[in-house]
Formats: sequence, structure tokens, C-alpha cells
Amino acid sequence: MQKVLSGMRPTGKLHLGHLEGVLKSYIEMQEQYQCFFMVADWHAMTTTYENPEDIHGNTIELFKDWLSVGIDPEKATLFVQSAVKAHAELFLLFSFITPVPWLERNPTYKEQKQELKDKDLSTFGFLGYPVLQAADILIYNAEKVPIGEDQRPHLELTREIARRFNFLYKTDFFKEPKEILTKFPKLPGLDNRKMSKSYNNAIYLTDDAKTVNDKTMTMYTDPLKIKKDDSGHPEGCAVYAFHKVYSGAEEQEIMARCCKGEMGCVECKKNLIVKINARLEPIRQKRAEIDKNPAVIETLIKRGNEKALVEASKIMSEVRKIMRLD
Amino acid sequence: MQKVLSGMRPTGKLHLGHLEGVLKSYIEMQEQYQCFFMVADWHAMTTTYENPEDIHGNTIELFKDWLSVGIDPEKATLFVQSAVKAHAELFLLFSFITPVPWLERNPTYKEQKQELKDKDLSTFGFLGYPVLQAADILIYNAEKVPIGEDQRPHLELTREIARRFNFLYKTDFFKEPKEILTKFPKLPGLDNRKMSKSYNNAIYLTDDAKTVNDKTMTMYTDPLKIKKDDSGHPEGCAVYAFHKVYSGAEEQEIMARCCKGEMGCVECKKNLIVKINARLEPIRQKRAEIDKNPAVIETLIKRGNEKALVEASKIMSEVRKIMRLD
Repeated sequence: MQKVLSGMRPTGKLHLGHLEGVLKSYIEMQEQYQCFFMVADWHAMTTTYENPEDIHGNTIELFKDWLSVGIDPEKATLFVQSAVKAHAELFLLFSFITPVPWLERNPTYKEQKQELKDKDLSTFGFLGYPVLQAADILIYNAEKVPIGEDQRPHLELTREIARRFNFLYKTDFFKEPKEILTKFPKLPGLDNRKMSKSYNNAIYLTDDAKTVNDKTMTMYTDPLKIKKDDSGHPEGCAVYAFHKVYSGAEEQEIMARCCKGEMGCVECKKNLIVKINARLEPIRQKRAEIDKNPAVIETLIKRGNEKALVEASKIMSEVRKIMRLD
Repeated sequence: MQKVLSGMRPTGKLHLGHLEGVLKSYIEMQEQYQCFFMVADWHAMTTTYENPEDIHGNTIELFKDWLSVGIDPEKATLFVQSAVKAHAELFLLFSFITPVPWLERNPTYKEQKQELKDKDLSTFGFLGYPVLQAADILIYNAEKVPIGEDQRPHLELTREIARRFNFLYKTDFFKEPKEILTKFPKLPGLDNRKMSKSYNNAIYLTDDAKTVNDKTMTMYTDPLKIKKDDSGHPEGCAVYAFHKVYSGAEEQEIMARCCKGEMGCVECKKNLIVKINARLEPIRQKRAEIDKNPAVIETLIKRGNEKALVEASKIMSEVRKIMRLD
């Protein structure tokens, strides 16, 4: 079975955008691949080092989110990056062979520095972010990595590091991982911007039915549709974007009735609220079960870390031999 | 007792230049400080990554050299850097908080790149060399580090990283290590250049009496002193530089007789050979003893690594708490 590595930063609770995107893809992948799903706490530090949040607490929450949506620790290896110290060792070993210009020309480096310009990110660790990613992936010799289009340059850098290692040490030890291009439905936030914790426009997996109701009722709609019987423009309406994900065959009917001025925004939102709550209800129930016995999470994390460690140790002992460090 | 950290790269056998410099200082320091002497094998990789030598073999040799000159594993902790993986972890954690410009402006960075310009050293690891050094030192919270004048900027960088860590995380956890400035007698090589393995002009600790004799007889002397009774110019003569180290009170007499044309270079060299061999003989004997039971070395290394690991682990568990990674 081919191996997959993917990681998420423990930066806070997950929302519907995550659920219909990355989490859904995890659930699919765990059936087809040997998956390593990693809480990327060291990666979180590259941008939050000045004011580290409660990374341990967020890690627990992320695990709960994962389990509650159906990511299965019997199928996938769920672990915490900083618990498998060998990631740091391989990061160091790769640092010896990675030219600085490869990192400087990385297009996302400058972009992210720009995007997060209120933070001082001209750090050595931020520059070396793709080196740590390469270590994360190659320490399991993963064949596949799910990425979005914007992460292509990072994965290419991982391949370049793998190639350089193989070339320098006359080996074919590291596989060159290939991308699984994930195309997610676009779920906008309540205000029609990107759904994001930092925009305060998200519906969270942990929101209860009333919160979902209240948030959805505030959702951005077509500004030209003032009265119920005004003819609406679904494209560009946040609520319609949700219906595309949650209403299945009914979507066409909703669109038609909106356009014809047969359905007002309140009816449309109430229709959606039922569906979001139906989607979230089993997740809430699973989470309530988990919360009854929180010690289980710690045990699961420990077990996952140990499983990852076993795999990483195998690769590292080969790597050390190849580099003549052992 | 204050702690000292110092490291040597396992790049091959040690010579008289090492003996009268760094090794002598180790022997003195182990009486006054809690010393951590490290085989810096990861550091060696930053410059030899393209063609790693037999690092494991060189590590064993370095340990033998250390023991044979009187460095005492009961007094000092002798260990191998790559065996204490937490150095890599702290390197990673420090990478998050170290600005790239601090590293770029490091004067030895450009110098070394220039000096070793046949090697491709524009690597991420070479740029981050002082970050790894900071990790090596601070992971034991060492108060003192023996350095030569040229390494001042590196140690200042370690202090800056310690200060930045303390500032960011509102703590005074890391001490700012101070230098022990080591002033070594200058022992030139056989050809009067710097004694160095790469110049092939060194007398090694492992050279036998005959080799010392043969090498010394080829040594560079005052080119103006052709015949025995020519008046010599000791300053600038390699043999005289050795007499300054090995001849004690007799040095003055040798200088006078050379200048006056009373002593020829052959007599002067023979005089020196006796002294070098007297210096090396107990070292050779100790080494022969060690070689009778080579398994002891592996055991010593293992014990030293474990001792270092215990110390490093204490510091790291504090560091993780302070950075909220635990």
C-alpha cells in the first residue's frame, strides 16, 4: 500500500471549510493508502513563535476534531510532529545538502512574508520551512502527498531534496513523492470572504444547533434581492455556495425559485440550517462520546506517536548509514 | 561548578598543534569545570556532506586521541553530537527565533565560504552553522566556552540567541555563555606554514619515534644559515618555534648558539627530536594500552553519550515547557 503524509497545524478549532475539504479527503485517503496524519506543531511555531498559543491544548482539540469526523486511528497513523524528534534530525541532515537559493526562490516564501507582514518572519526557520516539510514527508518515504495548487512549489522542493540526496550518496533510497491534487468545494465564510478563524466568519464543527442557526441567519446574500419576490442572483451569494455543497439534487430547484423570486432569503437560510445541522449532528454526538472519556485521547496520541516513531526510526537508521554517520 | 562546552570535528588524526593547543586546554579545564567535550560529527557534515569521510571511524580515533593525552572520562563528559538527538531539536527550535540577517552578517560565514570555495557551501546548513553551535552550548546551559579570537562572532551569536529566547518567552532560563580565550603557542608545520592535515606537514600523536625523526629532519629552517657556523635567525625558523614549546629554559641557550653559529641545524633538530619523542612516548604507551582492548572505547562513548543525554534532556524539557510545546 502506498504511503501518504499530510499535516495540519494546531492553530484552533476546525470549521466547515476544513470539514468539506481536507477532513473529507483524509477520510477517503485512509481507505486507500497507509496514511500518516500529523499535527504539525513545529510548523505552527514557524509563524507563531513570538506568541505561541496553547499548542498542547490545540493538539488535543485537533485530535478530537479528527476522531469526531471519522478519521480512524485503526486505519491511519495519527501523530504529533514534535513527538517524533527524528523529524528534527532529518531537518538538520537535509539542511547540509539544501542550497539556500532553492529556498529563496520559493514563491510562497515571499508571498507568505508579505501576507503575514505584521509578524517578523525573516527567520532562519521560516526560510527553512520547506526543508522541514521535506523531512516530514521523506522520513516516511511517502509516495503521495495531498496538496492544493499553491503548495506545488513546496512539494517540488521535497522532490529536489530527495533527488539531491540520492545523487550525492549514490542511492535511490528516497522516493520522489507525487501530489494528490485536492480540489475542494469553496465554502465561503458568513461574510462571503474566505472562511477563516481570523476573519471571525466561520461555522465550527463544535457549534451547537442554535449557534449554527444564528450564524447562518447573519449570512451574506445577494444585495440586490431586498424583498422575497425580488429576483435573486445565486452566484455570488454565500448561502447558495453552501447549498451547492449540502443540498444535492435540491440545489437546482432552490436556484430556480430564488431567481424567479419565489423564495426569500429567510426561507432559503432555514432550509440550509437544517442541512448543516444534519451534517454536524453525528459529529457532535461522536465528540460528546469522546469528551466523556478524555483520557482516551492522550492514549491514542501516545499510541499514534509510537507507531510513527517506529516507521521514522527505520528510515532514519538507513539514512544515517547512507550518510556514513553510523 | 561552572559548565564548559567544547567540540572537535572528527576529521582525522590529531597532531602536535592540537596537542599543545586545544588538548592541553581540555586537560586543564577538566580540573576546574564540569566539562562537556563533544565530537562534532554533525558540524563536520556541514562542510564534508558531499563526500563524508568515515565519520564513525574518525570518531573512534578522536576518542583514542583524547584518552591517550589524558582527557579523563571520569572528570569530563565525552560524547558524540549526533548521538544526542536533542541538539537537532534545539537547532530547529532556535531556527524559529533566529533572524536570517544575523547569520548573513556573521563575518566567518563569508570568510569560510571564500576559504573553502572549491566546495559548494551556499547550503542552508552552512548558513545555520552558528544556530547549531548555539544549540550545542545552550542545551547544557554552559557558562563557559573556550574559543579562539576568530570565533568571537559565533559565540556572540549564541548569546544573542539566548537573549532573544529569554526576551520572547519572558524568562531568564538561558545563561549567556562567556568565552575562555585560549592563547595557544604557535606550532608551525614542517614547511613553516600552519600545521594542518591538508598541508601534509604535520607530526601526529600516532607517529612513531622513527617517523618523528624523519619528519623533523625535513623541517624548514633559516634559509640564510647554510653551513653550521653561519649565524642563524631563529625567528622565522620552524625548528626554533618548536624549541620554544619543548625546550623550556634551554631555549635561550639554543637561540644564542644558533645566532652565534655555534650550532648547526642538524644538531638543533636532533635535540628537538628527543624532546618531541619524550613528549609523545607516554601518549603512545597509553594508546597502545587502549588498542589492546578496543571494546572499551565503544563502552566509554556509550556511557558519555548517556551522561550528555541526561543533561540535555533536563534542559530540553524546560525549553519545551517555556515554548509551550509540552
